Amino acid sequence: MATVDFLRKLTQATPASCDQEHIPLVVHFSSQTPDRSDALSGVGPSPLPALIESALMIQRSGARGLVIPCNTAHAWYDDVASAIHIPVLHIVDAAVEQLPPALRGQPVGLLATSGTLNSGIYAARHPEIHWVLPSAHVVDLFVMPAIRCVKSDDMTRASQLLDAAVYSLVEQGARAIVLGCTELPLARSDRNLRVPLIDATDALAHMAVRWALSGLPPASEHMKGL
Amino acid sequence: MATVDFLRKLTQATPASCDQEHIPLVVHFSSQTPDRSDALSGVGPSPLPALIESALMIQRSGARGLVIPCNTAHAWYDDVASAIHIPVLHIVDAAVEQLPPALRGQPVGLLATSGTLNSGIYAARHPEIHWVLPSAHVVDLFVMPAIRCVKSDDMTRASQLLDAAVYSLVEQGARAIVLGCTELPLARSDRNLRVPLIDATDALAHMAVRWALSGLPPASEHMKGL
Repeated sequence: MATVDFLRKLTQATPASCDQEHIPLVVHFSSQTPDRSDALSGVGPSPLPALIESALMIQRSGARGLVIPCNTAHAWYDDVASAIHIPVLHIVDAAVEQLPPALRGQPVGLLATSGTLNSGIYAARHPEIHWVLPSAHVVDLFVMPAIRCVKSDDMTRASQLLDAAVYSLVEQGARAIVLGCTELPLARSDRNLRVPLIDATDALAHMAVRWALSGLPPASEHMKGL
Repeated sequence: MATVDFLRKLTQATPASCDQEHIPLVVHFSSQTPDRSDALSGVGPSPLPALIESALMIQRSGARGLVIPCNTAHAWYDDVASAIHIPVLHIVDAAVEQLPPALRGQPVGLLATSGTLNSGIYAARHPEIHWVLPSAHVVDLFVMPAIRCVKSDDMTRASQLLDAAVYSLVEQGARAIVLGCTELPLARSDRNLRVPLIDATDALAHMAVRWALSGLPPASEHMKGL
């Protein structure tokens, strides 16, 4: 459902009034890819062979660029990007772009899978940001259960768990919070949580549309050079 | 957005509690395919080369079956199905399967593009049903504008136009109405329209899930043999 959510956001971010103005896409719902967090915790097989196979298939189909609407999979970003010759946009760059400029230098919370948190992909890609991370307790008790609820389509419970995780980061001083797992935006409630929530899925959709319509190299390529 | 809607319905129709229980999919958003209704009216190029190219790409990717979540494209069903060797489910079979058994023999309305209506794909595939079709006036004034509103993301107006089209078929005696264009279910309102609306997109999603999980040949293959 996270991939469907990404595709919906990509379609809505595209200025189009007929089919032909929409961006041609080839999408692989590679649901059999081994669980990324399990692999990063050393309790499951690596998803890398499946990720590369998927990337090669998409490249063969004629696609000119790749996006991976899964934050945790970005722990293998370098390996995937070097296995193909088309550019790969980076979801962390996309999320960071969406931080309100007024909050520059302020603490930014990150809610993500244990895999994303343990592999440190947000901090490694954007060390200039003061990241506020949830405790292992909050991850185990609220974040991972929220993600599992979305994967099994229990949105009410997912939403309560996400709110609890958000409150804990606000208590730790976060002034904005990145929803750094593509399942989490699906669990958003309408409740006012006092800080802006940055939806990494939506951010990647907007970056992808901008990239596809402009023909420019992706922002991630620029950023890598900085 | 119609393809996104199909994917959402397919995901929701799948009994799954983790990624790996979902059905692997390769999806081609072939937005550059020429307009199907224009082609059938003789005012635009044929979409057949694009449809076949898309079907071949999906077959090459390793897919074991194909669905085409576009009713009008089924005017070229035989040509697409004979160009590949994997089975192709038929959206009209899926929609007809969902008609309430209590309404057997009763008039069934069909709201669809001018292309689907003029090419007669519903009646040709299921001549046993008493189809009630909208007048050219209703198609031009309500149905096609509703579809264009969905394609340009104006859902409020789309919904008003769809309701008007539904009422006109109810006046003509329809006891159920097939939404036989994948844009139309997106325009559904919550209003009570007095007759059941059959969502061909949702019907195809359920047929696809059943087919993928059972490994049986598609219902359309059975039906062709009858």
